[in-house]
Amino acid sequence: MKIYDWPTGPYPARVRIALAEKNLQSAVQFVTVDLRKGEHKTADFLATKNYSGTLPVLELDDGTLIAECTAITEYLDALDAAQTLTGTTPRDRGVIHMMNKRAELELLDAISVYFHHATPGLGPQVEIYQNEEWGLRQRDKAVRGMRYFDSVLRQQPFVAGEAFSMADITVVGGLIFASLVKLPVPVECEALVAWYARMQQRPSVRHQLAMVPPPREPAA
Amino acid sequence: MKIYDWPTGPYPARVRIALAEKNLQSAVQFVTVDLRKGEHKTADFLATKNYSGTLPVLELDDGTLIAECTAITEYLDALDAAQTLTGTTPRDRGVIHMMNKRAELELLDAISVYFHHATPGLGPQVEIYQNEEWGLRQRDKAVRGMRYFDSVLRQQPFVAGEAFSMADITVVGGLIFASLVKLPVPVECEALVAWYARMQQRPSVRHQLAMVPPPREPAA
Ligand SMILES: N[C@@H](CCC(=O)N[C@@H](CS)C(=O)NCC(=O)O)C(=O)O
Ligand SMILES: N[C@@H](CCC(=O)N[C@@H](CS)C(=O)NCC(=O)O)C(=O)O
Repeated sequence: MKIYDWPTGPYPARVRIALAEKNLQSAVQFVTVDLRKGEHKTADFLATKNYSGTLPVLELDDGTLIAECTAITEYLDALDAAQTLTGTTPRDRGVIHMMNKRAELELLDAISVYFHHATPGLGPQVEIYQNEEWGLRQRDKAVRGMRYFDSVLRQQPFVAGEAFSMADITVVGGLIFASLVKLPVPVECEALVAWYARMQQRPSVRHQLAMVPPPREPAA
Repeated sequence: MKIYDWPTGPYPARVRIALAEKNLQSAVQFVTVDLRKGEHKTADFLATKNYSGTLPVLELDDGTLIAECTAITEYLDALDAAQTLTGTTPRDRGVIHMMNKRAELELLDAISVYFHHATPGLGPQVEIYQNEEWGLRQRDKAVRGMRYFDSVLRQQPFVAGEAFSMADITVVGGLIFASLVKLPVPVECEALVAWYARMQQRPSVRHQLAMVPPPREPAA
């Protein structure tokens, strides 16, 4: 399989962590698509790889394309019966999908909108439309999301309950993105901070974080 | 099980269609939450039912809450081994999740943002913040989304390929919402229109559409 990728991106990080959790890293060839040059928004990329113009995209050996981190994770997790990332019982599958989506809506996607709309984002050539007011609202939503996940992690060891799942990976993606845009986790979010420290002890997460560069200075 | 519901809402429609596809309607008790009164945004609803303040929410008999249509559909579909809505092979699961998410991002969620931000939405008491410019961009994105799904349906009979799946349900939800906000499908989208006519022959969809009232006159 091939993954169209941006090595330091918070979304691609989700798939790299999932691959490491499933011991599948060596089954994948990574193909870099340069976000800063807008290579993910070319007519060709949109028509032949991902209509939504985002990374990562998984390409199977038969040519099937799977975009969207959640969909890629579903694919990878279904390759074996253990389904350690997405659950096996109906209840677990439902709760994991809910918490995974909530981590996108309330944290990761909100930070992404903030980045693209209320900071220089990928630069003026890529960010041809920005709505700063919307971006700032999304930043505030993400900070509320951190408080929400903190409250969840005061009750249970993992984002979706008693076991590690793709929902944890998505919150990790959110905190990676928060660090890139220098959006601090409120200090009183002690359970979230403690959980993140535990996450960083997992080889899958530790290895990914070692690849992420320190936050850039915010451009003026 | 219980579903916190708004009978004519396009998102709840997705779950009602999924329930009908799985023959589970009679297993569910519907509890109406009045969106126009903002009952889904009360502190109590957010704290005890769904942090994201949206419907539908499924409550299992053991008290477990599952919000998010995709997560609810995963739960319902996993109740039997056939998994007719979410697929059984890794490839099918990946593609269905991708197309389902794309139907949200590029169509249904975009129309929802348009409705809440660039029309009177649920009324001034509920829509306490609106960003009209963002709403109008999302409307335009949704129309492009219709053209995209039309192009997909020129190649294959269903949104995710050769079989009906939850991705079809999500596009149906998008077209239900489009009709409510009087956003017409471009006439040249013949494959999308033909597919929608076929969808309406399915009892699950036909029954749901019979419940949806004709579009309201847009308020001034
Ligand atoms: N919903 C997508 C979002 C992926 C995404 O936003 N990826 C980033 C890379 S970290 C991207 O491509 N951003 C470019 C852009 O939005 O212009 C997913 O879950 O895969
Ligand atoms: N991501 C949610 C969205 C659900 C949604 O937006 N539902 C509508 C009802 S049709 C709602 O609650 N809207 C109220 C609001 O956003 O204020 C899902 O897929 O379930």
